[in-house]
Amino acid sequence: MTSGKSALSEEGYSRILWASRRMPVLDSIKKRWAKEKPLTGIRVGACLHVTTETANLVLAIKEGGGEVFLCASNPLSTQDDVAAALRDLGVPTFAVRGEDRNTYFDNIRKIIDKRPQYTMDDGADLVSTLHCERQDVLEGVIAGTEETTTGVIRLKAMAREGVLRYPIIAVNDAMTKYLFDNRYGTGQSSIDGILRATNCLIAGKDIVVAGYGWCGRGIAKRAQGMGARVTVVEVDAIKALEAAMDGFRVATMAEAAPYGDIFITATGNIHVIRDEHFALMKDGAILANSGHFNVEIDVQALEGSALSKQRIRENVIEYTMADGRRLLLIGEGRLVNLAAAEGHPAEVMDMSFSNQALTLEWLVKSKPSLPCDVCRVPEEIDREVAALKLSSMGFGLEALTEEQQRYLSSWR
Amino acid sequence: MTSGKSALSEEGYSRILWASRRMPVLDSIKKRWAKEKPLTGIRVGACLHVTTETANLVLAIKEGGGEVFLCASNPLSTQDDVAAALRDLGVPTFAVRGEDRNTYFDNIRKIIDKRPQYTMDDGADLVSTLHCERQDVLEGVIAGTEETTTGVIRLKAMAREGVLRYPIIAVNDAMTKYLFDNRYGTGQSSIDGILRATNCLIAGKDIVVAGYGWCGRGIAKRAQGMGARVTVVEVDAIKALEAAMDGFRVATMAEAAPYGDIFITATGNIHVIRDEHFALMKDGAILANSGHFNVEIDVQALEGSALSKQRIRENVIEYTMADGRRLLLIGEGRLVNLAAAEGHPAEVMDMSFSNQALTLEWLVKSKPSLPCDVCRVPEEIDREVAALKLSSMGFGLEALTEEQQRYLSSWR
Amino acid sequence: MTSGKSALSEEGYSRILWASRRMPVLDSIKKRWAKEKPLTGIRVGACLHVTTETANLVLAIKEGGGEVFLCASNPLSTQDDVAAALRDLGVPTFAVRGEDRNTYFDNIRKIIDKRPQYTMDDGADLVSTLHCERQDVLEGVIAGTEETTTGVIRLKAMAREGVLRYPIIAVNDAMTKYLFDNRYGTGQSSIDGILRATNCLIAGKDIVVAGYGWCGRGIAKRAQGMGARVTVVEVDAIKALEAAMDGFRVATMAEAAPYGDIFITATGNIHVIRDEHFALMKDGAILANSGHFNVEIDVQALEGSALSKQRIRENVIEYTMADGRRLLLIGEGRLVNLAAAEGHPAEVMDMSFSNQALTLEWLVKSKPSLPCDVCRVPEEIDREVAALKLSSMGFGLEALTEEQQRYLSSWR
Amino acid sequence: MTSGKSALSEEGYSRILWASRRMPVLDSIKKRWAKEKPLTGIRVGACLHVTTETANLVLAIKEGGGEVFLCASNPLSTQDDVAAALRDLGVPTFAVRGEDRNTYFDNIRKIIDKRPQYTMDDGADLVSTLHCERQDVLEGVIAGTEETTTGVIRLKAMAREGVLRYPIIAVNDAMTKYLFDNRYGTGQSSIDGILRATNCLIAGKDIVVAGYGWCGRGIAKRAQGMGARVTVVEVDAIKALEAAMDGFRVATMAEAAPYGDIFITATGNIHVIRDEHFALMKDGAILANSGHFNVEIDVQALEGSALSKQRIRENVIEYTMADGRRLLLIGEGRLVNLAAAEGHPAEVMDMSFSNQALTLEWLVKSKPSLPCDVCRVPEEIDREVAALKLSSMGFGLEALTEEQQRYLSSWR
Repeated sequence: MTSGKSALSEEGYSRILWASRRMPVLDSIKKRWAKEKPLTGIRVGACLHVTTETANLVLAIKEGGGEVFLCASNPLSTQDDVAAALRDLGVPTFAVRGEDRNTYFDNIRKIIDKRPQYTMDDGADLVSTLHCERQDVLEGVIAGTEETTTGVIRLKAMAREGVLRYPIIAVNDAMTKYLFDNRYGTGQSSIDGILRATNCLIAGKDIVVAGYGWCGRGIAKRAQGMGARVTVVEVDAIKALEAAMDGFRVATMAEAAPYGDIFITATGNIHVIRDEHFALMKDGAILANSGHFNVEIDVQALEGSALSKQRIRENVIEYTMADGRRLLLIGEGRLVNLAAAEGHPAEVMDMSFSNQALTLEWLVKSKPSLPCDVCRVPEEIDREVAALKLSSMGFGLEALTEEQQRYLSSWR
Repeated sequence: MTSGKSALSEEGYSRILWASRRMPVLDSIKKRWAKEKPLTGIRVGACLHVTTETANLVLAIKEGGGEVFLCASNPLSTQDDVAAALRDLGVPTFAVRGEDRNTYFDNIRKIIDKRPQYTMDDGADLVSTLHCERQDVLEGVIAGTEETTTGVIRLKAMAREGVLRYPIIAVNDAMTKYLFDNRYGTGQSSIDGILRATNCLIAGKDIVVAGYGWCGRGIAKRAQGMGARVTVVEVDAIKALEAAMDGFRVATMAEAAPYGDIFITATGNIHVIRDEHFALMKDGAILANSGHFNVEIDVQALEGSALSKQRIRENVIEYTMADGRRLLLIGEGRLVNLAAAEGHPAEVMDMSFSNQALTLEWLVKSKPSLPCDVCRVPEEIDREVAALKLSSMGFGLEALTEEQQRYLSSWR
Repeated sequence: MTSGKSALSEEGYSRILWASRRMPVLDSIKKRWAKEKPLTGIRVGACLHVTTETANLVLAIKEGGGEVFLCASNPLSTQDDVAAALRDLGVPTFAVRGEDRNTYFDNIRKIIDKRPQYTMDDGADLVSTLHCERQDVLEGVIAGTEETTTGVIRLKAMAREGVLRYPIIAVNDAMTKYLFDNRYGTGQSSIDGILRATNCLIAGKDIVVAGYGWCGRGIAKRAQGMGARVTVVEVDAIKALEAAMDGFRVATMAEAAPYGDIFITATGNIHVIRDEHFALMKDGAILANSGHFNVEIDVQALEGSALSKQRIRENVIEYTMADGRRLLLIGEGRLVNLAAAEGHPAEVMDMSFSNQALTLEWLVKSKPSLPCDVCRVPEEIDREVAALKLSSMGFGLEALTEEQQRYLSSWR
Repeated sequence: MTSGKSALSEEGYSRILWASRRMPVLDSIKKRWAKEKPLTGIRVGACLHVTTETANLVLAIKEGGGEVFLCASNPLSTQDDVAAALRDLGVPTFAVRGEDRNTYFDNIRKIIDKRPQYTMDDGADLVSTLHCERQDVLEGVIAGTEETTTGVIRLKAMAREGVLRYPIIAVNDAMTKYLFDNRYGTGQSSIDGILRATNCLIAGKDIVVAGYGWCGRGIAKRAQGMGARVTVVEVDAIKALEAAMDGFRVATMAEAAPYGDIFITATGNIHVIRDEHFALMKDGAILANSGHFNVEIDVQALEGSALSKQRIRENVIEYTMADGRRLLLIGEGRLVNLAAAEGHPAEVMDMSFSNQALTLEWLVKSKPSLPCDVCRVPEEIDREVAALKLSSMGFGLEALTEEQQRYLSSWR
């Protein structure tokens, strides 16, 4: 990076570089784009978490010949050093950590003022602001992408009501995203968050995981891998049975509450751990949430039942109950992997952002005729991302022989 | 069992009892049926493998008040002691191990002669014979079930061509079947087959698993659990990437051939291991197949390339190659868990046969209006089987609170 | 093998060959010996289990120029086909499966009549017969080896009492034996025995392992690897704590009895599972023993408490208790890996028999001056066996640089 | 804690409390001591790492009636908040983070000035200063304890040379220390350090562990538990073979260098990774050391070979080699679990410090007659610590029946 930059920007730049080392697929796309310039003349508006991984995505777009404008999809996740570095690198970035609601939306409006032809969203705030406030710009938008489940749900509702005015590709639903980020990303980073928050020994602990979806499976597997005995709490009999067959103990929360050392929720539901369970837990029990919203542990009830509380480590509050037992809450019940660790590793974001990149290229080059609806990432892109990732890890993929292709097609 | 029975029948009966101990869900259904008699007056024709597990299914139907007639769905899988015991227990059973093709179909015709109202199939031979030969009986058939993938494929072809004359419920596609039998059943029994055939130490071995579908996953996990290093060979980049993230090595067969100690195929494809791979393998390499058909290892090519062969253990043939290397083939390349072990444990059959039983009851009691097509097992049945299984294992299922039900429905 | 041999002998020979494929270290020693003939003129008396693995050891001795005479160390473990093949191959073998006590000792005496200079024992029956009955032969014996714990204990008692007249090398205590055969050999083969006896699904089961010594550790790890939840019962607090930290549940037998699905004893103690525990177990619980003696499960008490019993599979007896619960005993409480499977895999025997072979060579060539006591296998031999095994598996061993050797020696 | 304390002291106190929650065994000893006051009138000089865990040990001694004086055993490990809190709680504590060598030894001398009767050491600096400088005080010292391997080695040298003047109990060699802290403590905290330093995804990575001692085993197991493929590099053939049988790949460093993603050393040797290996590594390879001294990775050679280096995250330096490859070094090659994480979890220190406490009590109460040598912790203490720990985890220990005790003693 050239001299004359601020220390903040330098710090951001070195961290962006670090992430790029762990995002080989996106990096290979960027290198190809640098030669092919497939995005020349294209304007992209991106409303994403302003992090080192996002920086690599927008820098790839720039390298590919596109103009890209970035604002934050959440005021709290902005990394100011990254924003500074991006601005120095020529990417207009409108985001300050902790910006208030008005500033947040003003920054979205600044992106819209750039009249993007393609949008990239993480939660659909850019799309919805566009639709509500700027019909004039909306007409020029060709298509967009959406990164998250929450955004996909909002956009599907818009589509159902017939108000969505341009097609959105749900990167969130790509197999190379949902099959990987929850299991391997959240699995590891939830354990990581608990370690950083508590430095407690996992080996020998009874860990209770509520929910056996992709996240819960990842967490359960990693907890077992660190030497814990794992109990799974589930409402779905089939998932519960899978957990039992995978070698985990299955119990209701009321059954597990008295013996659990650490409780981790990953259900997508509300008040999974609540007063009736706090009452049963043993002294020193640790509570953490890995679900998207901070409603899985009933923190309000805990605050109400406890006689006193004190911050005992940076991300740990100790609640003392009337009978003297102490319950320890990590990160106020918010997503433990973001509250107490660094969220998904770059290796995982590599896959979803490579889907973002290749989907954008496909939209630009193939100009597919799509309905004004939430659409799937083409399966070829999904498979290409997987193949590139596999290759970046040095692994070979078996090829079908002609005889095998014939056999498979005849069988179908 | 009352006296006066043959030794063969006694042996069959004690083995049927043993299986019933390991099939608690089906057993609980049988006990309920014994009181409720929901199948009174119903005639069921069943064309299934005549094994101890099937015996428990047909005995449950009898207990439920139904008349049931049994023939074999494969001439080689009939257990004569079970057939003898069933006949002594009052279930007309038309099957002899090793019966020739004519006898096989004659036995199916004997079932049809009983004018069944419901059919149970494993491969669709009963359905197809009915359709081809006995329009008169066909008219009285209300519905049927199908246990296997192969049968489902045939029946869907019939439905597509408009010739299927009554609805078939694909038990094969119930979640409590396909999520469990391949992963846990085939996973264990493939390793079991290799142990019985070879008594070799798994710990420290390099095991190469071709295919990372449900079977391959189960095999890979169990092989690792016994102390092997596992390499996965895949043609699907997404599955290959999952294997890599699950901690396995990923390679092409050509890359893995020189270092693998044991090779297991589970791909559904042809000639996954072939001459070019035999040529690279080390002395003493062991070859086994867990796929449905014995085409995954190119046995014919192996026979052609080898200078000589000798049977070295009951289910092991040693082929000596021109350069002196010896390759060992288990069970002639047929399904290793059936060729060298006993197939799926009863615990797994408990789930698919409980789906059979509850689906039959639903057909009889609810008289659902169904198209002449291949239909799904109702999700409630699938979930009931899972819940009963979980309960039989002594595990509690978490219940949703009213607040949680509201939260989930509002969120949708 | 040349023609004119009996079918029995042919069968034995092909099985001996199979074992040799899985014993690469012993095989490499045999090949070297065939050239070097280090045992020329030496007479060896061996009292060992007459199995395929032992056959490879005695054939190696013969190849090395030695004369070797074999009798059984246990009348029940003799494999008659192996004995037949050995006789055809020129090794005098005095053993018949099921021989009575008199025949058993007569066969030992036949070995003594050959005036061996070196003895190989598995339980010390040859040594003790020599000492009690044949002072004349005893004078010519130079040294011996002992394979088992039981034998070592007897011989140490003899040494303590000053009656042992020649030195014995305790192969049993070589690291490449005791660190491997129990953990990896017994671990796998106990699970294997349970699978062959019951064909039950391990995944999802609660398995209770009594004893967390080397055997117990191996069994616990393999059971977990097959998908079981494992509980460990221990009397030693330190081992119990290791089990807890290794991720297993720890409980007393009384606590575990009500929820265990399968119980496996490996303690070396008596009546680890007894009436008070039978009374608590659930219907269908399975009992197996992996300890050396059949005293760990109190079978007599079980026989006494049960109302009736029946053989329900080849190696499974079902006991029906007064309250209707049924408990299932595998292999009459004898070593499950021998009673229901094939004992240690050849890969494991490869290491202990290579210790036997190299120790014999060292005794013959180095003529070490040893006390009339139980002595250790020289550490160089132990390490050589490990290095040869590792190399046979294709793995490289790191070498110390000169700088590292200096560093290590200075540090000491 | 009473008011009027500094913020620093308050912070230290709340962290000491947190550690005490995770040290239930030491806590139970403290509570018993508070009643029994077994250390009344005793003066203890402690030279230990001034951390939250040590604070709980010295506070227990104070609670037991003893006077205790604390200085640091390493100038860099002192936690100033803990020191402040201890002083406020009435424990004279002479330690400041980063103190220079003179201050360090002056602080040791201040402890000696208090004329301790018992010493507690972590590296033997207190013992050696006492012996070299203060014969007058030395005469009043009754006994001491030593926490580390390094200290034990120094003290054994002193004993061998006949200069050690009072007995030292090697807490380091207690089973409840060495069997647990390396495997479970270092195993987890090394992975933790790598996660905090890099936030990289472990799943799917090739991790190369040099050394398969207790530390290396712990690291290998945890790395596998997080989804890595693990390769072990060893110079000891027996350990290498165990690694292979445990399911790991075994290789030389030269073989592993080209494919490893992360390298972790835990050998106790020098230059385990050196120029010849750096030359083979792939772009982005990560290097970390878990051994005691920072000599295992040849950092000087790396500095010499690299064209440039830059700090890329807090504990990560990126070296760019002449050919453009980048190698990443964590924590300058110092102990990764201390450099980038928080060292052993309190749960592990609970066991070694409970040995410290109970050994002190035994020395005071039993006044054992011991030689001026390095002595073992009495086995009863070791077992008591294990039993207390097990009980604190809620687990029951099986008791021997009288019949079993008889059986075991007769067998011996």
